Amino acid sequence: MHIASFARGSRTTYGVKSGGGAIDVAELDPVDGARLPATLIDLVHAGARELDRLAAAAANHRGRPADLDALTFLPPIARPGKIICLALNNSANAGRIISGPANPAFFSKPSTALTGHGAAIPIRSFYGRVHPEPELAAIIGKGGKDIPAERGYDHVFGYTIHNDITSPTMRTEDTYHYRAIHPDGADGIRQVDTHVSYPGRYKGADGFSPMGPWVATRDAVPDPHSLPITCWHGDELITSDNTANLTHHLPAVIAYISRFMTLEPGDIISLGTALSAAQENGKAIQNIDLNRLGGTVTVTIDGIGTLVNGVSRE
Amino acid sequence: MHIASFARGSRTTYGVKSGGGAIDVAELDPVDGARLPATLIDLVHAGARELDRLAAAAANHRGRPADLDALTFLPPIARPGKIICLALNNSANAGRIISGPANPAFFSKPSTALTGHGAAIPIRSFYGRVHPEPELAAIIGKGGKDIPAERGYDHVFGYTIHNDITSPTMRTEDTYHYRAIHPDGADGIRQVDTHVSYPGRYKGADGFSPMGPWVATRDAVPDPHSLPITCWHGDELITSDNTANLTHHLPAVIAYISRFMTLEPGDIISLGTALSAAQENGKAIQNIDLNRLGGTVTVTIDGIGTLVNGVSRE
Repeated sequence: MHIASFARGSRTTYGVKSGGGAIDVAELDPVDGARLPATLIDLVHAGARELDRLAAAAANHRGRPADLDALTFLPPIARPGKIICLALNNSANAGRIISGPANPAFFSKPSTALTGHGAAIPIRSFYGRVHPEPELAAIIGKGGKDIPAERGYDHVFGYTIHNDITSPTMRTEDTYHYRAIHPDGADGIRQVDTHVSYPGRYKGADGFSPMGPWVATRDAVPDPHSLPITCWHGDELITSDNTANLTHHLPAVIAYISRFMTLEPGDIISLGTALSAAQENGKAIQNIDLNRLGGTVTVTIDGIGTLVNGVSRE
Repeated sequence: MHIASFARGSRTTYGVKSGGGAIDVAELDPVDGARLPATLIDLVHAGARELDRLAAAAANHRGRPADLDALTFLPPIARPGKIICLALNNSANAGRIISGPANPAFFSKPSTALTGHGAAIPIRSFYGRVHPEPELAAIIGKGGKDIPAERGYDHVFGYTIHNDITSPTMRTEDTYHYRAIHPDGADGIRQVDTHVSYPGRYKGADGFSPMGPWVATRDAVPDPHSLPITCWHGDELITSDNTANLTHHLPAVIAYISRFMTLEPGDIISLGTALSAAQENGKAIQNIDLNRLGGTVTVTIDGIGTLVNGVSRE
């Protein structure tokens, strides 16, 4: 099943993909007399049984699905507790890493960075360079702590597309080279030459997380690590990769993160940038400065959908 | 007025400080026949008029305030949309910065990192070194974008205490030295030697944001940049600083962040670590490895309150 959150007029709802349209949950007949969850995050919290009820109600629906053109797509989850993004998690990065962790490294983005399919990404002149990063994202269904890798997929509600918009100019600006204070024995200190960077602005500005339009439920994606993923800028192919090339795969990532942080229903884990063809072509997503070039960015993941966003330069 | 979120038995509520206790909002008589907001985040959303009604109701209350010992303090805001933390925002850092931005640099922590006054901070053996960072935090009342600095304080609901627990071991582990891809002209790329670090784990683990117990409303704090702030480990004074020493002050910080991100009611902005006396004594918060030493950390900010947390080593 493919599910999207969207607005119809002033009403926020979600629906199930059907043919070339979407069946609005608000138009479904109650199943067993009980109403279905009113929002997608409510559905995520409600668990597998409600998902089955939704599928049954959608299969029984005889009305005409809403035209997709008449919908305003919203981010699948309006206010996730966490949007966790993996860094440098693609085997194509390996040759460029001089030193770094063997474990997944990650940062988080605020929910105010989210925007829906079809919305323009607002880019301000003082942002400097801004480029797209096409990523597969998982939406957590069942929360947990210390989740074993072999149970990792049990905690996934589904999969969506995330364009992890990034300003490398702001990243460079918000990097410190400084002498950090380290302990020197129990009571003394010494200063250690250190580089540290902070992803508040360069990853977290408004609209820097286009997401959607569809959530493919877990059962609709037999293997999330065998999916072709492409990124286009206008009619130019920038990236043609496969989620098989991600270094750390989702079950291990869920296990690792949940040793430190409690995962909650609706949390997003974005698995890192697809970048393969870019390097083979001698050109990369980093060449696509949306602040200079504007244009439309299209990310497609086979079996999940296509996320399209324009740019509004402010 | 000083307000705290807390649990009483299985019930979550908030209350107003009164003498040595707290008046539970659930025990207040309705004002003008209308109920007061049921949670502190509801109160924040409701705005100034509800705050005035709360103050009036608390002043009229004739019952005995609840004993603080009988309350389980909770983080003031259960699930803030953003917890934004400023980095290296203390004038005592200046001499150690070799290069870095003139603007505030910041990162965000997930809401799952929050824990309340009196709770033990869970620290696992594989975290490596873990130290406290005593900070003044502002809670946003009225949201906004592009807020002028001269209107910055208008957007503040109040102030609380944040202990920005940090693992420098994980920070070092999650730092990459790598050759980043930069554009070289429109279609070429070159590789640039770069250091980048990711604060997912080292700032965001469960319990790494003890916060509270009290929120001092904006009117109760005439100048948030003239407040003595201390940090104790057991009976040893580690930090004795003043919020006057923060490099970027709150109105400028609100203005700066809101050029990039929409601020929402309940968002937290933590203004950076107080560290003054530590350096004068030749000893620093970095010497207080809670993973090795355990113990109790006490942060006091004059006019706001005292935040006390133990450690549970797991």
